Parts: sequence; C-alpha cells; structure tokens
Amino acid sequence: MVKALVFLAPGFEEIETCTIIDILRRCGVEVTVAGLVSNQVIGSHELAVIPDQSIEEIRIDDFNAIVCPGGYPGYENLRKDERVVSLVKEAFYQGKLVAAICGAPVVLSEAGVLNGKVCTIYPGMEDEVKKGGGIPKKDIVVVDGNVITSRGPATAFAFSLKLAEKLVRKETVDRVAKATLADIALK
Amino acid sequence: MVKALVFLAPGFEEIETCTIIDILRRCGVEVTVAGLVSNQVIGSHELAVIPDQSIEEIRIDDFNAIVCPGGYPGYENLRKDERVVSLVKEAFYQGKLVAAICGAPVVLSEAGVLNGKVCTIYPGMEDEVKKGGGIPKKDIVVVDGNVITSRGPATAFAFSLKLAEKLVRKETVDRVAKATLADIALK
Repeated sequence: MVKALVFLAPGFEEIETCTIIDILRRCGVEVTVAGLVSNQVIGSHELAVIPDQSIEEIRIDDFNAIVCPGGYPGYENLRKDERVVSLVKEAFYQGKLVAAICGAPVVLSEAGVLNGKVCTIYPGMEDEVKKGGGIPKKDIVVVDGNVITSRGPATAFAFSLKLAEKLVRKETVDRVAKATLADIALK
Repeated sequence: MVKALVFLAPGFEEIETCTIIDILRRCGVEVTVAGLVSNQVIGSHELAVIPDQSIEEIRIDDFNAIVCPGGYPGYENLRKDERVVSLVKEAFYQGKLVAAICGAPVVLSEAGVLNGKVCTIYPGMEDEVKKGGGIPKKDIVVVDGNVITSRGPATAFAFSLKLAEKLVRKETVDRVAKATLADIALK
C-alpha cells in the first residue's frame, strides 16, 4: 500500500491539513498523521486534532511521501523542529515525494531540498524559498521532480489531487475529484 | 460577537467541517464545535477531532447560526439525532441562519425547514430534499431566506464564505477570501 506522512504541528492550517488527509485517504493512500507534540494538537484556528502517531515513532523508510501543511505558527514550528527537517532531507535523498503548501515550503528550503527547484509558496514569501535556491513561480501547484509545492488554503484541494496523482492511478484520482465535486467548484 | 454552532457527528466530512470552522473563525465569528458523542469524534476519513462542547450543553439562544456538515455516516447521524433536529427547527423558527452541505440538507428536510425553499444537496440526493418540500437546484451554494445549502467537499469554501457574508461585514469576508487565495483557486 502507498503510504504518506503528514506532519501535525501546533498552529497547523486546518483546511490545508484536513484536505490533504481526506483526499489522500479517499484515493486509497495510507496516511499517518504525525504529531510534533504528544496528545492533541491545536490548529491556527483552534481546532483540536489527535494525531495517529508521535513524530518520535516515525521511520521514513515506511513512507512513499512526506507532506508539510502550512498555517501560522505551524510552518515555523515545522521549520524549527530538527526531527522534521531531518525527515524531509532523508525522504528527498531517498527519492520519495516531498511536498509542502502555504508557508511550509520554508521547511523544504531549510532542509536544502529546493536548490535549483521550481516551486511555489504563499504570496509574499518568495524570498524564503530563494534563500534555499528555489525558483518561485505563481502557479497554484508546482511540480519539479519529486518536489510538489502549493500556495494556501484554497489551493489545498488541487495540491492534494496532484499529490495523489503521483502516488496512485490517475483513474482513482479522477474518481475522487468527481466524487468531491472538484470539477464543478475549482478553477 | 456573532456566534455559530457547528455540529460534529461521527463520520463527519473532514474537508467540509474544517473549512466551515476555519473560514468562520478567520471572519471573526465565534464558532462552537458541538460533539454528538463525548470526547473525540472520528470523521469519515478517520480524522479524530475534539469538539469544544457536548451537544448536551448547547442553548440555541446563544447562537446566530447553526451549521450541519456532511459526510457519511455523519449526515445520517445528524438526521437521526433528535437533539440536532430539534435545535435546527428551533433555530429556523427563531429566524437564525440554518445551513447544511453535502448530504446534510437531509437534516433540514427532516426538521421541516425546507418546505417551499429553494436549496441544494449532494448530486443524486435531490429526492431527499423534495420529501421535505424543498426545491432542489444545481448551484454550488443556494440561499433562500435564512436557509443556506451547498453540495460537497469542494464547494465547502464557497459555502463558508457565503455563510460568513450573512454574519459579518462584506469587507471582512473579502479580506479572508483574498488571504486564503479563494480568488485564485475557486470558480
């Protein structure tokens, strides 16, 4: 089974995080929500979510993809967590899919995996990816090799579907896009 | 302060529920997430969320709006819960905003508040609102008086922004739409 790791940091963006988890699971991806703190994690808009596991228990070998949701201070909490940065680096060099949305491409920048990569980030934060050698674009989802980046809450749906396309059959993703009404609501 | 009640039933749709809560809170609405069961509630895609309160503690007089997210079996759990149906009925007759998305317009139908109302529901479920006298349309969000309905996960963003427009100043909603990138990602 295809497996994805989604980080859950205090201050996570609720729409982004829940959309990634929901869409990937609908596509048949086994998602593990890894909490940076023990027990419940509170989002940037006060939603309390219980992770599946603690980051302490994570072995990157078990996963095909690693995903960093945004939100403030969620993405800062991811960037300053050495365990997260180390897992992102390890995943990237093992050729696994590495993805981030909103402010969270800063985590990829910190991990040194954006060097020379075309990418995107929340509007106005472009300098943050340039620092890591990234080449920022304005598209809502950008794919460069095994790195996928996106821009914010309303782009989380397209981002999650694109992620799924890299992990499972296109027909499965198309079926989920249709069932969730992505075709009638998204640009 | 403007207050909204959002139900959290076992089997809730994660994208819908989190989008409603996130967008309304970003707009300055005080949102209470009311759980139908004690402690954590598990969504239709296994996300575990802790509600703010139990439905047992809810007094409808405290709220300006009441919102039913979809998801399966979430909407069925809402429909068969007499406390939910009774709160929806009470809210409607007090002229409060009553809203539902995806399969959850069945809850409004059950509460008898759709009679003669133009509304919408998840594609293929139109007969369910007709039973309650509702007049189903295909638009992604439909407003008729104090009733707002919508269709599914990808329409949750537009639904939440429309809800917010009925509760707070238009400028606030426009600011949130821009900050969340709704303008660049949604139809």
